[in-house]
Amino acid sequence: MELLTDSTALQRWIDARRAAGGGIGFVPTMGALHAGHMALIHAARAQTAHVVASIFVNPTQFGPNEDFGRYPRTLDADRVLLTEAGCAALYLPTVEQIYPEGFQTSVRVGALAEELCGRSRPGHFDGVAVVVTILLNRVRPDVAFFGLKDYQQYLVIRRLVTDLVLPVRVVGVPTVREPDGLAMSSRNRYLDAESRRRAAALYRGLSLAREAWIAGERDGTVLENRVRQVLQQAGIDTVEYVSLREARSLRSYTPQADREEDPVMLLAVRVGGARLIDNMVLSSEEGAGLSI
Amino acid sequence: MELLTDSTALQRWIDARRAAGGGIGFVPTMGALHAGHMALIHAARAQTAHVVASIFVNPTQFGPNEDFGRYPRTLDADRVLLTEAGCAALYLPTVEQIYPEGFQTSVRVGALAEELCGRSRPGHFDGVAVVVTILLNRVRPDVAFFGLKDYQQYLVIRRLVTDLVLPVRVVGVPTVREPDGLAMSSRNRYLDAESRRRAAALYRGLSLAREAWIAGERDGTVLENRVRQVLQQAGIDTVEYVSLREARSLRSYTPQADREEDPVMLLAVRVGGARLIDNMVLSSEEGAGLSI
Repeated sequence: MELLTDSTALQRWIDARRAAGGGIGFVPTMGALHAGHMALIHAARAQTAHVVASIFVNPTQFGPNEDFGRYPRTLDADRVLLTEAGCAALYLPTVEQIYPEGFQTSVRVGALAEELCGRSRPGHFDGVAVVVTILLNRVRPDVAFFGLKDYQQYLVIRRLVTDLVLPVRVVGVPTVREPDGLAMSSRNRYLDAESRRRAAALYRGLSLAREAWIAGERDGTVLENRVRQVLQQAGIDTVEYVSLREARSLRSYTPQADREEDPVMLLAVRVGGARLIDNMVLSSEEGAGLSI
Repeated sequence: MELLTDSTALQRWIDARRAAGGGIGFVPTMGALHAGHMALIHAARAQTAHVVASIFVNPTQFGPNEDFGRYPRTLDADRVLLTEAGCAALYLPTVEQIYPEGFQTSVRVGALAEELCGRSRPGHFDGVAVVVTILLNRVRPDVAFFGLKDYQQYLVIRRLVTDLVLPVRVVGVPTVREPDGLAMSSRNRYLDAESRRRAAALYRGLSLAREAWIAGERDGTVLENRVRQVLQQAGIDTVEYVSLREARSLRSYTPQADREEDPVMLLAVRVGGARLIDNMVLSSEEGAGLSI
């Protein structure tokens, strides 16, 4: 796997691969890689000839009291995983390369980014929007792959790609889960044994809501409370939100008005020292198989 | 000259020209074309093989009390001028094509866009930034041409192109002036005979400031007052700002700290029903020959 540590090396690699033919697939990450990221690499390999990943822990998407400083950095292990997964190149920009002196441009997505995680993490999606715009414009891939675990982020990125006419196709890859259902996340490393055990309640709650949906329950508040109850019983410290939304617009789900819109249940909690998020499309058999 | 009224036609034209070889030059305008725009077309023809202009009166860069509604629309005359100037194609998107339903992304440049016209026209440069990003991503030119009459806009666009890594070279083209020095502007059409006569004071004031600079005057306040005095004597109704700035950063000009920075005098006034802007680089022999 080729290591690309600046934009000149990246450009040379991209130009050569583009000349060789076959599409370029891009998997942007913050490192601390796990099986969820590997699913992104596998999806990229299935759809494009040349796969480049990036690792960049983006400071602008962390709030002042968030975990930027302690976010796990595991570059050696990440390189082994990417190489084994058949990733062809790894782009490793520095903060100064992404945000050089004098940088002062911001990119913001509106309504889609304002609620849920946008409310609990002010500025977070602005940081995501600007770094994804920059990375997509540097790499110029044909297809870019994002995990559906970060469901709101996925919608925000699709929106900005559409609105700003970025020449890339955005693909969402279903969440990879541990045997007990916990969504793979770099932040799971923060969990001690007890918190890890409690964290399985996120998936249990979402699954119960889906079962209730399939059984005919259509009242959003009833479905949300089903999830909240499971989280409470498991001893989850803090529930930031549990919210049933339209899957494309993220507007509050109302069954009358939105007969064609799939419902997605999204949640964010704090457990141990970690902030965890998860989601499930209640109307999908897989709970994650939404293709929008 | 080819008329391109949607993005499919544009894309087909661009692809064919790119396949033919030679660079693509782009001149985005709001129509109501004049000799200043023609200078942009000529500069584009000199530097690129295929020149495409656009006419789009962008609603998002007008404030609620500004002149969007009455902004001059002169499409037939514009087409004649562009054809005569050797422009190869004209892109004419509708508002719905640029901002389709659900559009919700904004692009904002920071410090550069906040003062001067940014202060008197809140949101103006946000509108410019987003529409230029969209147009550049649709047209994908090798070089884009902007008039230096809109000096702050030119710097804002250079900044966003650099920051968001848009794959285009931005060229600023010197201001074209009437025989009495008035900078060409679509908004000059708003001027009645008396206002038109008064408006010549903008260039006279800037020229006097440049003469004072060349004679050794370095005090920004003295230079600004020289301009204000000329405007006042001419009976200009309202002076929005007269400000000496560093030519690259637009920070206030202080001769001690900024020995390497060129000084640019910028002004905005209201005369008759029109808002007019102009500027001059005081250290340049031409007053507009700055290449940054």
